Amino acid sequence: MKKFINAPANIVQELLEGFVLANANKVKLAGPNLVVRAKEKPRDKVAIVTLGGSGHEPALSGYVGAGMLDISVPGEIFAAPGPPRVIEALRMANREAGVLFVVLNHAGDVMTANIVMQMAQKEGLKVRQILTQEDISGGPRGAPGTDRRGLAGCLPVIKIAGAAAEAGKSLDEVFAVAERLNQNMATLAVAVSGATHPATGQVIAELPADQMVIGMGQHGEAGQGVQKMASADKTADIMLPLLLDDLKIKAGEQVLVMLNGVGSTTLMEMYIVLRRCRQILDERKIRLVRALVGEFLTVQEMGGFQMFLARMDEELLRLWDAPCDTPALTVR
Amino acid sequence: MKKFINAPANIVQELLEGFVLANANKVKLAGPNLVVRAKEKPRDKVAIVTLGGSGHEPALSGYVGAGMLDISVPGEIFAAPGPPRVIEALRMANREAGVLFVVLNHAGDVMTANIVMQMAQKEGLKVRQILTQEDISGGPRGAPGTDRRGLAGCLPVIKIAGAAAEAGKSLDEVFAVAERLNQNMATLAVAVSGATHPATGQVIAELPADQMVIGMGQHGEAGQGVQKMASADKTADIMLPLLLDDLKIKAGEQVLVMLNGVGSTTLMEMYIVLRRCRQILDERKIRLVRALVGEFLTVQEMGGFQMFLARMDEELLRLWDAPCDTPALTVR
Repeated sequence: MKKFINAPANIVQELLEGFVLANANKVKLAGPNLVVRAKEKPRDKVAIVTLGGSGHEPALSGYVGAGMLDISVPGEIFAAPGPPRVIEALRMANREAGVLFVVLNHAGDVMTANIVMQMAQKEGLKVRQILTQEDISGGPRGAPGTDRRGLAGCLPVIKIAGAAAEAGKSLDEVFAVAERLNQNMATLAVAVSGATHPATGQVIAELPADQMVIGMGQHGEAGQGVQKMASADKTADIMLPLLLDDLKIKAGEQVLVMLNGVGSTTLMEMYIVLRRCRQILDERKIRLVRALVGEFLTVQEMGGFQMFLARMDEELLRLWDAPCDTPALTVR
Repeated sequence: MKKFINAPANIVQELLEGFVLANANKVKLAGPNLVVRAKEKPRDKVAIVTLGGSGHEPALSGYVGAGMLDISVPGEIFAAPGPPRVIEALRMANREAGVLFVVLNHAGDVMTANIVMQMAQKEGLKVRQILTQEDISGGPRGAPGTDRRGLAGCLPVIKIAGAAAEAGKSLDEVFAVAERLNQNMATLAVAVSGATHPATGQVIAELPADQMVIGMGQHGEAGQGVQKMASADKTADIMLPLLLDDLKIKAGEQVLVMLNGVGSTTLMEMYIVLRRCRQILDERKIRLVRALVGEFLTVQEMGGFQMFLARMDEELLRLWDAPCDTPALTVR
């Protein structure tokens, strides 16, 4: 394994130390694995809190800052943090306006979140939970037993919720607008090469030289669509219609497309794919009103990307465009 | 080669099409391979223009926008654009306040720049050129015959120059402050795995499984320091003192450290390295006043990073902290 690390057991502590050094004007540690805003005047607005495994940098702690998260609770590599740390974060965030708790649908995160929500209720904390689960490879939307994973869609949900909170909306209002996005978004991943778990050295998802896998999860979970490596255009031609169908997007509607590189796939490639997405949308008379391309939630050095699509309305667009100032996303 | 591209001959045109789509509020194409600011009121301030090969995204066109570049002229993959396109950019940028032309020291870029500067002089354009050449693996500072390459240091130079131009400084003043940074900065690269040229499919710099190369250039140019793969701390212990010695940084001085991931090396790893840099600086009583970690100038999927060090003073810090709004760097 060719990674610049020291003792595997220290990875998360050491990376967080460097993360706050690199972003000292935006974030700080309020305790081990508790990332908070560096400068925040005490005021009563809805707080946004999340949890999630490390190893996916810049997610999720990279979105702590004005206009997005108030607190992030990173776990060990690819592992949810335990309930004690998360309930500490909710207590710290608790206030009259309340707390929105963003959870991605992965077994460990959900298990922790369930325990913590029970504790929070007993303690009388004012918390509402939102669960992102937009990976369409999990099965048809709304079908019984479908268990879709939460992929990079957590980022737009946090952006929208954070902007609504910043604007002084109530907890119910923040929840409602975030949940509206949550119900109108879909993601599909494609992987072309694997990665190595930085702590264990285990290989995640080895892929044959001529194949790509559509639907692979962000810890190497199996995808259904093993196929021959395809061109940028062909890949977009396969993936985008699946997302459009899932959301039943029709001509005249407005959409946001986000392409999230998971590791070694370049911006160069994703720009080429985005260009093709625009052509597909133009053909269907669907309006690409916003686009975002970058590495937002990674899987170490894995090759591939996640294609995210959301149906947008005027309020969602206003919140999407609102200023934010975090280590990994800044909107002026 | 597992890259999401279409016909190799169309890579640059297609990636630029997607790039401006993804950043429509910040940049646009003013012609083939001419990236300019999307909205710019005509006004007389020094213009900052650069040129450089594609395949290094987000460099260099990702730094077009308020507070940084006015025009970027991307070439084909890893190749300088020809003089006709570049002189067109200088003509477009020409104004009473003048133009600062930022060139990285690579044979093709310099050849194009030399021809273009001759044309510009004949045409009476008001242009001054600055040449970045901060790769210390090229040889000792100031030694005769030393030909140091320009690496990611172009980014801080563009940031400083762009902020000075935005503040209404004259061309000579903008040149002077950018050149002061240029003379007080140093970069050293380490590579752990190679990359594939996206247009030709040629492998760039294959590396044995247990080795890393210190001093490798950003097109796979040979480095002197082939050695056993080392830990994050050991790697920082090797690299940072070489940069400190090159710049003769002494106790009490202020420095900026930038870690530039070149492709598949994660933020996680670079944060761990940055943490060790801070420890080394603390031991020497050198003040780490600013840090920046990310992928700013990449080499496709290559593994490794560039460590950049600059001696900072109050004016450079003010310009570094000044707002900017570009696709790849936003400061609020």
